[in-house]
Amino acid sequence: MTGRAEFASWLEGTNDLTSRFVGSAGIADLVNVAGGLPEPSLFPVERLAMIASDAIRNQPELALGYGPTGGMPELREEIAARYRARGIRIDASNVLLTASGTQALDLAGKVLIEPGRRVACDFPTYAGAMDAFRPRGPRYQHLDLSAPEKLGAAMERADLVYMIPNFSNPTGKLVDLETRHALVEAAHQSDTWMIEDDPYGALYYDGPALPGLLQLSAERGEGDCYRGPVIHMGSLSKQLVPGLRVGWVIAAPELIAKMSSAKQATDLCSNSLAQLITLAAFREGMIEELLPRSLALYRERRSALADAMERHISHWFEWEIPVGGMFIWARAKDRALDVEAVVEAGMKRGVLVGPGSAFDPMGLSGPALRLNFTLNDPGKLDRAMERLADALEEVTPTRQRRESAVAAG
Amino acid sequence: MTGRAEFASWLEGTNDLTSRFVGSAGIADLVNVAGGLPEPSLFPVERLAMIASDAIRNQPELALGYGPTGGMPELREEIAARYRARGIRIDASNVLLTASGTQALDLAGKVLIEPGRRVACDFPTYAGAMDAFRPRGPRYQHLDLSAPEKLGAAMERADLVYMIPNFSNPTGKLVDLETRHALVEAAHQSDTWMIEDDPYGALYYDGPALPGLLQLSAERGEGDCYRGPVIHMGSLSKQLVPGLRVGWVIAAPELIAKMSSAKQATDLCSNSLAQLITLAAFREGMIEELLPRSLALYRERRSALADAMERHISHWFEWEIPVGGMFIWARAKDRALDVEAVVEAGMKRGVLVGPGSAFDPMGLSGPALRLNFTLNDPGKLDRAMERLADALEEVTPTRQRRESAVAAG
Repeated sequence: MTGRAEFASWLEGTNDLTSRFVGSAGIADLVNVAGGLPEPSLFPVERLAMIASDAIRNQPELALGYGPTGGMPELREEIAARYRARGIRIDASNVLLTASGTQALDLAGKVLIEPGRRVACDFPTYAGAMDAFRPRGPRYQHLDLSAPEKLGAAMERADLVYMIPNFSNPTGKLVDLETRHALVEAAHQSDTWMIEDDPYGALYYDGPALPGLLQLSAERGEGDCYRGPVIHMGSLSKQLVPGLRVGWVIAAPELIAKMSSAKQATDLCSNSLAQLITLAAFREGMIEELLPRSLALYRERRSALADAMERHISHWFEWEIPVGGMFIWARAKDRALDVEAVVEAGMKRGVLVGPGSAFDPMGLSGPALRLNFTLNDPGKLDRAMERLADALEEVTPTRQRRESAVAAG
Repeated sequence: MTGRAEFASWLEGTNDLTSRFVGSAGIADLVNVAGGLPEPSLFPVERLAMIASDAIRNQPELALGYGPTGGMPELREEIAARYRARGIRIDASNVLLTASGTQALDLAGKVLIEPGRRVACDFPTYAGAMDAFRPRGPRYQHLDLSAPEKLGAAMERADLVYMIPNFSNPTGKLVDLETRHALVEAAHQSDTWMIEDDPYGALYYDGPALPGLLQLSAERGEGDCYRGPVIHMGSLSKQLVPGLRVGWVIAAPELIAKMSSAKQATDLCSNSLAQLITLAAFREGMIEELLPRSLALYRERRSALADAMERHISHWFEWEIPVGGMFIWARAKDRALDVEAVVEAGMKRGVLVGPGSAFDPMGLSGPALRLNFTLNDPGKLDRAMERLADALEEVTPTRQRRESAVAAG
């Protein structure tokens, strides 16, 4: 077997976190606070079942046949109209349908990254984005958002900027309005492509949404077609259901055309039935109907997780309560805490938590955990933090804990 | 706008054929004999509509939630069982679910190709495979199947072999049994990864199927898990419906694991609903029920296209009638024929044909057209060839035609 070509070297750097999380869904009694999964009881099951069968019966050739690579024209137009309703001037030529937000990242990497090109991110950042870019061989730079006046120079040195302004994954951090203006100003000045990855943009629990990077950038343009540097990525996964694998990209038409070429070479076209279901769901206003229920449920669970953390793990961790999204970012008080050992010990005790290291390759934030509050009810969240505390007791024996508490105090 | 990073260089080489074909589906009265599309009237519409709504109603979390990256375990096992029923010893660890056959090619490229690695193909070969590999920067070698005794040495020089033994796209050529044995022998001797891309494997019109490369390779192994060099790729697209975007890979477990990592970074997981529909369709025996109807229809259309070609374009082209698949490969008698001009002139006259150049970057076969016979009824196929003849008349004025006929005769 020695003659076989070696596997491509980029695979050595990849993490198996997400598939571990997704794949572990079947383990009995395990409480998964590691993934970014929505609450399934929110899925509008009966209506989606009817929409699916109607789509197949009434439009069989569309639902079951090949579709255009860039997405069904009606769906691209519907998505454009939804952004226009929020005052963002785009048309269908600005829209690419993708098979998930992850595919949007894969395609952006294929089109914009060559080996050695520089991608600037606000670390820690989404591990899945780094995975998607990895086959293209980028180098990374940290984009320091605390120094807005330096953003322009930083972007001059970057080929691509990757941002999650609404409740960053993993930190839950919201980029404030002033920084958003500074980011867009810098992107326009340096004319640097800037991804606005926005799966959580609807999940604001404490107040109205801030304008996004696409919106701020589009306000600077003229005409009805967007030509600026922002590459906005949206997804159905956190707004309706993830299993249909529907995402979209809003960007300048010439970039959309190149990403469509890349998509042709990647999967030829997206699932047609999923596109028809999405179109019907949009037209029926299903997203808008569902949102208040999702927000109420997730708001309550955010509090429940924060309370459970306070009860069980505040000895070891500190955190801010995020104003949206799906995660609380728990930073270890002891910078020597072995988070990987905690994750392993937790899994044995029936709780799955996300190690911060996967999101923080430069080690900028110290040991941390990403904890999700959307998937589990308050009882389960409490049990999860109790189990996590047990795991922490195991990994940091009492004497050592006392010392680190003193050092941290 | 001059500051923006340039688009990745691999995009310069890509062709837009497939999306032109797929996208042109809406042009009125155009007869498309360019694509490889199945006949939509064969789709089992009512049963699929019921399966889809049942899947959502009865298994909402599975149908609408995230699934495992490598595919639902029950579906991987079902696919393994279908191959085992044909005497091929594999288990679920040999199976990866993909979102289309094209994605299988993208993932194989990501895992097995680094810039400059050598991919050996029997040219002309599938343009979509070259597109899928293109971002990885391979070099190509022609694999001459007419010299079986040289295959071993040729494979020693290659990192990956790409084959479509059943009715190659574009040529419709069937690789004979002796050559199959020689290919498998050479792959085992040189221990070279060898893709068997097999979307058309069920479409034998004139006799029983030959054993595939996977089968011949698996017969050499022991145990119930396949560990050989063949990477078999199957697809639902030509067997049931293409719009669900379901494909699969059968290969050694260590390669499946790496392709699953690559899939995690590409789209996280496949559409869950499509997987449940596929599982139900397999279990209901829908593929086996549909096949005789598909074969009867496509066999008749193959004859209809060949007859129409004889009537209208035999002055310019020659061909063999393929024993399976979806295409007739028409080779120009005049090696100076401007095929691109013919394609353009044909489109204006309402017929879409596939230029051979897209499949033949080394120009090994001379000017040619790929003509599909599965999508259109005999009347439309006749009209298509009549229009193509008009386009040929336009591109090769009479005097020139006479000369080339004399030269070719």
